[in-house]
Amino acid sequence: MTIAAITTAAITTAAMTTAAASAIERRTAVAHDQVRVRGFWGRWQELVRSTTLPAQHRSLLATGRIDAFRLAWKPGQPDEPHIFWDSDTAKWVEAAAHVIASDPASPLAGPLAEVAALIASAQQPDGYLNTHFTVVAPQRRWTDTRNAHELYCAGHLIEAAVAHHRATGDRLLLDVARRLAACIRSVFGVGPGQKRGYCGHEEIELALIALYRATGEREHLELARYFIDERGTSPNWFAQEDDARGVPAAHRWDVASCQASMPVRALTDAHGHAVRAMYLYCGMADVALETGDAALGAALDRLWDNVTQRRMYVTGGVGSRHQGETFGDDYELPNATAYCETCAAIGLVFWAQRMSALRDDGRYADEAERALYNGALAGIALDGTRFFYVNPLASDGTHHRQEWFGCACCPPNIARLIASLGGHAYATDRAGAWVHQYVAGTARLDLAGTPCAIDVATTYPWSGRITITVRPENPVEAVVRLRIPGWCRQAGATIAGEAVDVAGSTRAGYLRIARRWRAGDVIELDLAMPVERLHAHPAVVDDRGRVALRRGPVVYCCEAVDLGIDPDSLTIARGSPLHARHDDGLLGGVTVIEGDGTVVDAAAFTDRLYRADATPTRPRRLLAVPYFAWDNRAPGAMRVWLREG
Amino acid sequence: MTIAAITTAAITTAAMTTAAASAIERRTAVAHDQVRVRGFWGRWQELVRSTTLPAQHRSLLATGRIDAFRLAWKPGQPDEPHIFWDSDTAKWVEAAAHVIASDPASPLAGPLAEVAALIASAQQPDGYLNTHFTVVAPQRRWTDTRNAHELYCAGHLIEAAVAHHRATGDRLLLDVARRLAACIRSVFGVGPGQKRGYCGHEEIELALIALYRATGEREHLELARYFIDERGTSPNWFAQEDDARGVPAAHRWDVASCQASMPVRALTDAHGHAVRAMYLYCGMADVALETGDAALGAALDRLWDNVTQRRMYVTGGVGSRHQGETFGDDYELPNATAYCETCAAIGLVFWAQRMSALRDDGRYADEAERALYNGALAGIALDGTRFFYVNPLASDGTHHRQEWFGCACCPPNIARLIASLGGHAYATDRAGAWVHQYVAGTARLDLAGTPCAIDVATTYPWSGRITITVRPENPVEAVVRLRIPGWCRQAGATIAGEAVDVAGSTRAGYLRIARRWRAGDVIELDLAMPVERLHAHPAVVDDRGRVALRRGPVVYCCEAVDLGIDPDSLTIARGSPLHARHDDGLLGGVTVIEGDGTVVDAAAFTDRLYRADATPTRPRRLLAVPYFAWDNRAPGAMRVWLREG
Repeated sequence: MTIAAITTAAITTAAMTTAAASAIERRTAVAHDQVRVRGFWGRWQELVRSTTLPAQHRSLLATGRIDAFRLAWKPGQPDEPHIFWDSDTAKWVEAAAHVIASDPASPLAGPLAEVAALIASAQQPDGYLNTHFTVVAPQRRWTDTRNAHELYCAGHLIEAAVAHHRATGDRLLLDVARRLAACIRSVFGVGPGQKRGYCGHEEIELALIALYRATGEREHLELARYFIDERGTSPNWFAQEDDARGVPAAHRWDVASCQASMPVRALTDAHGHAVRAMYLYCGMADVALETGDAALGAALDRLWDNVTQRRMYVTGGVGSRHQGETFGDDYELPNATAYCETCAAIGLVFWAQRMSALRDDGRYADEAERALYNGALAGIALDGTRFFYVNPLASDGTHHRQEWFGCACCPPNIARLIASLGGHAYATDRAGAWVHQYVAGTARLDLAGTPCAIDVATTYPWSGRITITVRPENPVEAVVRLRIPGWCRQAGATIAGEAVDVAGSTRAGYLRIARRWRAGDVIELDLAMPVERLHAHPAVVDDRGRVALRRGPVVYCCEAVDLGIDPDSLTIARGSPLHARHDDGLLGGVTVIEGDGTVVDAAAFTDRLYRADATPTRPRRLLAVPYFAWDNRAPGAMRVWLREG
Repeated sequence: MTIAAITTAAITTAAMTTAAASAIERRTAVAHDQVRVRGFWGRWQELVRSTTLPAQHRSLLATGRIDAFRLAWKPGQPDEPHIFWDSDTAKWVEAAAHVIASDPASPLAGPLAEVAALIASAQQPDGYLNTHFTVVAPQRRWTDTRNAHELYCAGHLIEAAVAHHRATGDRLLLDVARRLAACIRSVFGVGPGQKRGYCGHEEIELALIALYRATGEREHLELARYFIDERGTSPNWFAQEDDARGVPAAHRWDVASCQASMPVRALTDAHGHAVRAMYLYCGMADVALETGDAALGAALDRLWDNVTQRRMYVTGGVGSRHQGETFGDDYELPNATAYCETCAAIGLVFWAQRMSALRDDGRYADEAERALYNGALAGIALDGTRFFYVNPLASDGTHHRQEWFGCACCPPNIARLIASLGGHAYATDRAGAWVHQYVAGTARLDLAGTPCAIDVATTYPWSGRITITVRPENPVEAVVRLRIPGWCRQAGATIAGEAVDVAGSTRAGYLRIARRWRAGDVIELDLAMPVERLHAHPAVVDDRGRVALRRGPVVYCCEAVDLGIDPDSLTIARGSPLHARHDDGLLGGVTVIEGDGTVVDAAAFTDRLYRADATPTRPRRLLAVPYFAWDNRAPGAMRVWLREG
């Protein structure tokens, strides 16, 4: 398929996408289907297309999740539809639709059409759509919004419908979503007889904005805003619901665990369940983008600083605690027991993308990049068939990816992220274009009113050399902004062969090149990528006396399979040389970091536990591999934070 | 009271003590009441006498433990006698008896006599004595030997009785103990109708040997040997007992947790509940000492190596795990979560004392010394009224001593250890005397057949200068062996002013001085006590990259109250100078260690979690205090193992 073909397919939905005029000056992301991805992410997309999504389709079928939409389950039968299930299928539909958008002839088209038809067939006459509450517990519909994930599942169905419509032009699921939204709107709200509730697991908010953007129907925006505005007000909805259901005090969760202890505009710290928090912040940002709500923006700024300056792992993983899958306190970032759900890192990418639209600052795309190349990408094996739910930064060798989970949110989530990855690379505004992420491939976008292709040639993230060819249909005065990543301390650039004053032309993380662009103008960007030693804030207990290795956006780790020992036994001397080397044959082709470490000579401790003499050490070769690629070979211990001494 | 008075009192029991001839050539400990303790331990003994034992008597009364022996409890009343209770009172009786042995006029004499009479009054006509099973559950007597602690409580009553008799000459409790032993002997054994059982919590074994040594009645040795021999044989006693009681599989403990998974002569690793293990090993050593059982000795040698070379903290604490209060695997020695029950360190002292009798090697007294000055002594506050049950080597500042515990084994255990401390210092054999521990004071012992006083003048453990004056009644050819501690790398000695070739005369950890001793012969021993930096075997994960400070036998720690910061924030540079300074005004008078450390400058991380630049540090004064004295001032974080870098 050619770029032209993608563009044609997209034009049918472009008008609808922009039907809802933004309330504030913002950077509008260029849709994923306008970006043909090659290189590093192109190979991941091919893997997801050819292997991951077919495998996940089989898992969804095998576990009964797809057949659940037949509504044929009867009490006593196996495969009772679970409250989470519809969301798993919906995320697969969304991912498959992302593939179909660029490749209508994909073998996924048939299964996608079948599943879409099944989903549509499960919708009830009143618009309600949820397999669990239709066949298992119809009497409990909308009675437990905190725990039952009903609105969460609805949100994913709506996101899937929007993607399916955008990819195929078929209104089948979009209309299902519109009827489902209408059903929800009839139940929830401030009107007489309505429930003044909201969902325990946020998702519906961002989904309704997506539906609003896809249809231009303002009632979806209004319903999203209602959910945002109502959340955490007094009297607390979940407490009322618990009262109504007679839930004993001991079984009532802390409402802060689902961000409902105060109105969202008053939030200051990222708290509670990390995925829920990320999805809420996405919804808040979407509403802020559409309405210009400054109080929401101010809350998001506080939350962003709290997350990225106090509660985020160096991998972009968030949610420190297994218990409740929650954020910890400030600087509570243990490595071996890190929870770091894959969905939470993905959620951070989603939130960062929205913050990039809301605020003109490269730090949002910086953190999106951190999570993309590390905390999120680790969620999927190099063979595309196994997944992490939990992403620790240290392992004793017993933590491994699995093919599927009883709670299977992460596998289709990473699939939909990768399948739509191109949508995170570019944005436009009236003045021109923004390059947030360096993704090899070609984008079609509107450059200050002129259709334009942008070609990116690079082996990023392994090299910081990026060749960007701008090809407007006609010469156009415009500003092209290129992100100078926060990790980069030396960047060079030329435009049409002439040096650019990078330092002088960079503001808030973007190199801004304003000129009359002509087809074939070439920007050569050179982002220096030395191996870096990162230290953590001294309040991060687990990282004291330790160093993490990073090169470009990629965070590294050491694995026992390379070292022959537990990497925790290794110490790196301060200032010792570390070299990067690309190894095409390793882990699908990665750049590794090599150097020298030392290990304590255990032989000096023969027959004794403690000794007072100077302890002899032996040199040991250090090899570090990208964190995202860990646990793809022989099982063994892994460490991101290495001892320094 | 004078030394002569002590000696006179002791002579009445001396014949009984040696009535049972040892089966093997061994070093017989000089009893605590033959040693007048001054200096460091003298102050602790005075505290226990004047404060700790009166306070514990009040706690025993207040909690109903003493009144339980009135057997007046009825169902529905408060203070139901618990299965542990008798042992708590028994250990207090033992400790109080140790005090009375040296000081019959002590105010403890009255309470001791009252409690002893109450205990005696509770004995049943058949000799049975246990408050819980007499008034709460008489029908369950001897039905749950694994969990019910019946034989454990009996053991402590027997130890108390032996101590009470030795101290007072009164046979009241000794005869109670003899009848109790007869009762036990009627129930347990290999005869027809007898239970082939043993106790889930070992203690009865060592107690029966003490009773044998006090009375010369061989049946007590035989019963102890039966319990040792029967333990862990097939079919497993506890499994049979569970079968008989219909205990569901899920509620059956792993019999290895009480050292019953195999016959004790086959044991190779210290496993299961640490206190139980220590008491078992004591009983095994006692039987080996009395019978010459070589297979028991070989098992003990293996267990000793396993404990001291792989499963013991640098403080002499043992039992790494909270779960089950058990040993961990080899090198499983976490600091913050260390269990290290006070009773287990005390048990290690008891075991080491017996190993010193069984084997001619200073390493046993070395480890006794380690546990005495560190892991055990930390169990009691400097004011003598609060106690640790759990002794971690790192704390966030929330772990504190308590006045009492529901399971109150530790407080009276540390009291009886301190009250009998002199009994760990000396031993004799036919050739002469052994000085295992350097305890300021005066001992009366038999030096190769001649009554002899030994005066020790020292400020040990703060100084390694020890002046030992030997005063035999008549000149005598004998060997005096002085332990050269394993921690000491430079020792000098003179005898009557003439230099001794310490290196040439030291074998297996003892400097051996053979000569014709005359009253007033003075040995000057000088054990160099530089500040030492200890490193742990690299397999001890928590200690990697860390150093512990030790001076002489005393292990140090840093506390936030001295540093103003969490000691874990501090890094000590390798090779940086560390100085010892005695501070009479601090913590009752301790030698502290001073030096310089560094802390990472948190200001360099303002608004960021991670940074790639070299991280600035600031100097910070280091002050370390003896571990045993921690948590006696303002609450705060504590660390034994400090970062080195």
